[in-house]
Amino acid sequence: MAKLLSGKEVASHLNEDNKNRVRVLQEKGIQPCLCIIRIGENPGDMAYERGALARCKNTGVSCRTVSFPADVSQEELLTSIQALNEDASVHGVLLLRPLPRHMDEAKVVNSLRPEKDVDGMTDLSMSGLLSGRKNGFAPCTPEAAMAVLEYYGIDCTGKRAVVIGRSLVFGKPAALMLTDRNATVTVCHTKTIDLPAVAREADLIMTAAGHAWTVRAECVREGQTVIDVGINEGPDHKLCGDAAFEEVEPIVAAITPVPGGVGAVTTSILVRHTVEACERQNRRSFMD
Amino acid sequence: MAKLLSGKEVASHLNEDNKNRVRVLQEKGIQPCLCIIRIGENPGDMAYERGALARCKNTGVSCRTVSFPADVSQEELLTSIQALNEDASVHGVLLLRPLPRHMDEAKVVNSLRPEKDVDGMTDLSMSGLLSGRKNGFAPCTPEAAMAVLEYYGIDCTGKRAVVIGRSLVFGKPAALMLTDRNATVTVCHTKTIDLPAVAREADLIMTAAGHAWTVRAECVREGQTVIDVGINEGPDHKLCGDAAFEEVEPIVAAITPVPGGVGAVTTSILVRHTVEACERQNRRSFMD
Repeated sequence: MAKLLSGKEVASHLNEDNKNRVRVLQEKGIQPCLCIIRIGENPGDMAYERGALARCKNTGVSCRTVSFPADVSQEELLTSIQALNEDASVHGVLLLRPLPRHMDEAKVVNSLRPEKDVDGMTDLSMSGLLSGRKNGFAPCTPEAAMAVLEYYGIDCTGKRAVVIGRSLVFGKPAALMLTDRNATVTVCHTKTIDLPAVAREADLIMTAAGHAWTVRAECVREGQTVIDVGINEGPDHKLCGDAAFEEVEPIVAAITPVPGGVGAVTTSILVRHTVEACERQNRRSFMD
Repeated sequence: MAKLLSGKEVASHLNEDNKNRVRVLQEKGIQPCLCIIRIGENPGDMAYERGALARCKNTGVSCRTVSFPADVSQEELLTSIQALNEDASVHGVLLLRPLPRHMDEAKVVNSLRPEKDVDGMTDLSMSGLLSGRKNGFAPCTPEAAMAVLEYYGIDCTGKRAVVIGRSLVFGKPAALMLTDRNATVTVCHTKTIDLPAVAREADLIMTAAGHAWTVRAECVREGQTVIDVGINEGPDHKLCGDAAFEEVEPIVAAITPVPGGVGAVTTSILVRHTVEACERQNRRSFMD
């Protein structure tokens, strides 16, 4: 039986730290604030928004939502982002994506100032993943996966890690983060031949394929750690990860459950970034 | 005996294409121009500069050098870069690095406009490696390695690729480029345990470790392709790559020699980027 890596435990550890940092800011008269921009009423977006609002409230961070109808013009959205860029009382901005098809997503995303880009979606934030320069922030989900490893004391140095999925929001940033933590990282994807054999080589599997049952018994062996970032609807219509949990869990050494794994940590990272953005922006204004 | 992947052949193929594109520009009255900025008189820099000058001349691209003494102030350098940013007759700028220690390299590098950043060193150029957005250019050396694969018709899809080295100038960008070409990529580095075993798993080894004899007989097997990006001084004081050529060449299917391999292609890519920068800048000005 595998050790369950509880996202809730990681999150409550991060929340404590976030609360302390908020307290320090508040003692200086500074109130950290996140603004969420939502377009339309996608149920996934609305669920994430509710989670973020609750997490902010719980940590002492202010949170407001700016919502637009699905047919909002790009110009109107850009005007709103511009206003938030200029608004010194807002420290972080989360733009829920994907944007409607009538918009130039790259243009809209990059209109956000990197110092407020708490989910690491702008070009300058992304460049930091390569260069290590802190122009903005890393995307929250891969950072949440790293926080799980860190909390449970899983050292990556010299380990073989396999990342399944090569997306911009998870696979590529996660691979860079694991490499920086001295793992020997292999990125697998839909064109990988014999994924099970490659996955079995790993000490650590991080999967974000977005398909239920991507990681089955044949992909794993004793001693492995599985970090499951997938959020899928399983064959039984229940929420499940990429791993076939019932098959995989009895074999490996440790695994994150879905739900209750990495997903439970993401909003804590979002709040941490907002607090950090607030700290940086106020440090800068003290120095001006 | 391995097939020798000749960088000279790849370069002369690229040069022909560059020449044709220069001719098209010149027929419109446009003269592409590269400017090289050199600080001090490092012999490696001066050798690269000579190579780039010769390649430009040969292709019909103008090339000028702005050189500074090693103790130039950062301010003076920034002023010069600013002038080149504004100078519409200069389409590409190559800043030879590393910069002297008294400078803030990130600040200087990022003062260059990404559209003129023909060696892909600015943050915005680098973000393009992740996002695929063409804000600037990819770094020349990993792109030269890809050009060798492309010229020799080596398809990466589904292949296992091992990149040795995780630098910003080669290993990380090369891994991203190979992943985008559908290879299953593993990045190895100084903390990798049992590099020979990992390297033997690969169909394609791309090495930029910067140490002679990093890849010895035990790291390779039949059928592999080895792209050697190392430029080192060997035990006999001769120029050599990362691979122990005499040991490796008899085993593998194909290998780039050093010298005459990837290094011979880099300046052709630099010229290609300059031509492309010129095309993009003029396309834009026609649209304005």
